[in-house]
Amino acid sequence: MDDMTTDTEAGQWRKAPGRPRDARADDAILEAVIALLSSGQSAAAMSMEAVAAKAGVGKATLYRRWPNKETLLVDAMLRMKGPPPVPQGRSLREDLILLATRPIGKDNEKHTRATACLLPEIAKNPELYDVWQRVTEPRRNVTREVLRRGIETGELRADLDVELTTLMLSAPSMAQNLFHFNPAVPAEGLAEKIVDAILRGAAA
Amino acid sequence: MDDMTTDTEAGQWRKAPGRPRDARADDAILEAVIALLSSGQSAAAMSMEAVAAKAGVGKATLYRRWPNKETLLVDAMLRMKGPPPVPQGRSLREDLILLATRPIGKDNEKHTRATACLLPEIAKNPELYDVWQRVTEPRRNVTREVLRRGIETGELRADLDVELTTLMLSAPSMAQNLFHFNPAVPAEGLAEKIVDAILRGAAA
Repeated sequence: MDDMTTDTEAGQWRKAPGRPRDARADDAILEAVIALLSSGQSAAAMSMEAVAAKAGVGKATLYRRWPNKETLLVDAMLRMKGPPPVPQGRSLREDLILLATRPIGKDNEKHTRATACLLPEIAKNPELYDVWQRVTEPRRNVTREVLRRGIETGELRADLDVELTTLMLSAPSMAQNLFHFNPAVPAEGLAEKIVDAILRGAAA
Repeated sequence: MDDMTTDTEAGQWRKAPGRPRDARADDAILEAVIALLSSGQSAAAMSMEAVAAKAGVGKATLYRRWPNKETLLVDAMLRMKGPPPVPQGRSLREDLILLATRPIGKDNEKHTRATACLLPEIAKNPELYDVWQRVTEPRRNVTREVLRRGIETGELRADLDVELTTLMLSAPSMAQNLFHFNPAVPAEGLAEKIVDAILRGAAA
């Protein structure tokens, strides 16, 4: 299963050559999962049958690519999150802003709703939590690398708590984007403000 | 309706003298709402009938105290959140730690689950969002007061963004407590670490 997952995760971000007929079914299947989630369907209660029906594909087509719901949910979440951003390495501040910024796309509102619906379920379901960690860990790893590079270059304090800073960079954006946590904070310029507040305390 | 809400909110944190018979029914009703939410019941789909049945009271008893679901949800959320903490005003750092700390009680896990289940629904339902704001605004106001006092005493920068800082104090705790957002950050000492990171950048 690990091999298959690695293959699936890697294949997510590039065209799948030699499988032209599958690609459209894959798209339909993943969009069906996202549509079910954003309509309020619980991930735990979601059946492979419901996904196949919503996608308009046969169950055999679905099971050929995703042998179980967990691997399917990982790929649906990866599709919603998109690939982690690639920091340019020219400016610590710019790299952190990139990481704290939510990508804006046409599906953003639907994805926000689907993610918001998933989070509580993830929190109470250990298997889904593992799935979620496999989706979110790559982005946190990019943040960790940027912060560690900042420590190496001397821009950040040598004793900076990298894990806490990673949390403090991502949690306020998430809280605002998904839940409008503090209505008095405007959406515009949020990533810049968060990064500047953190850098002020984290600078060497 | 505003008068009633004010009365209900104030009454939440003290015994209701002269209404001994109602108090037990009130408790049962509010606990029924919390139990329904923490079992995954959607707030939007929750009916007054279901609440009355779960609480073991008649519909007349329920409607006598709460004329509609919105006022009932406000009080159930207030009961889960508890009253905002009262800062002692001796130390800015201690006051902020108090505000960033999640109260620990026997019902904490159930309340966490109920809140986590509510958040996505709140985000997509304007009426529930208004309810939620009435519940969360008092605590944010306490945080704002503490931060403004810190600016007045010269402990905090005069140009500190109070709203952003309020968000940055609360969002990381919420993300960890409700969703275990970054599994590499230990729960122990979290509030202290968040406050120290913020104070480092916010100090005058």
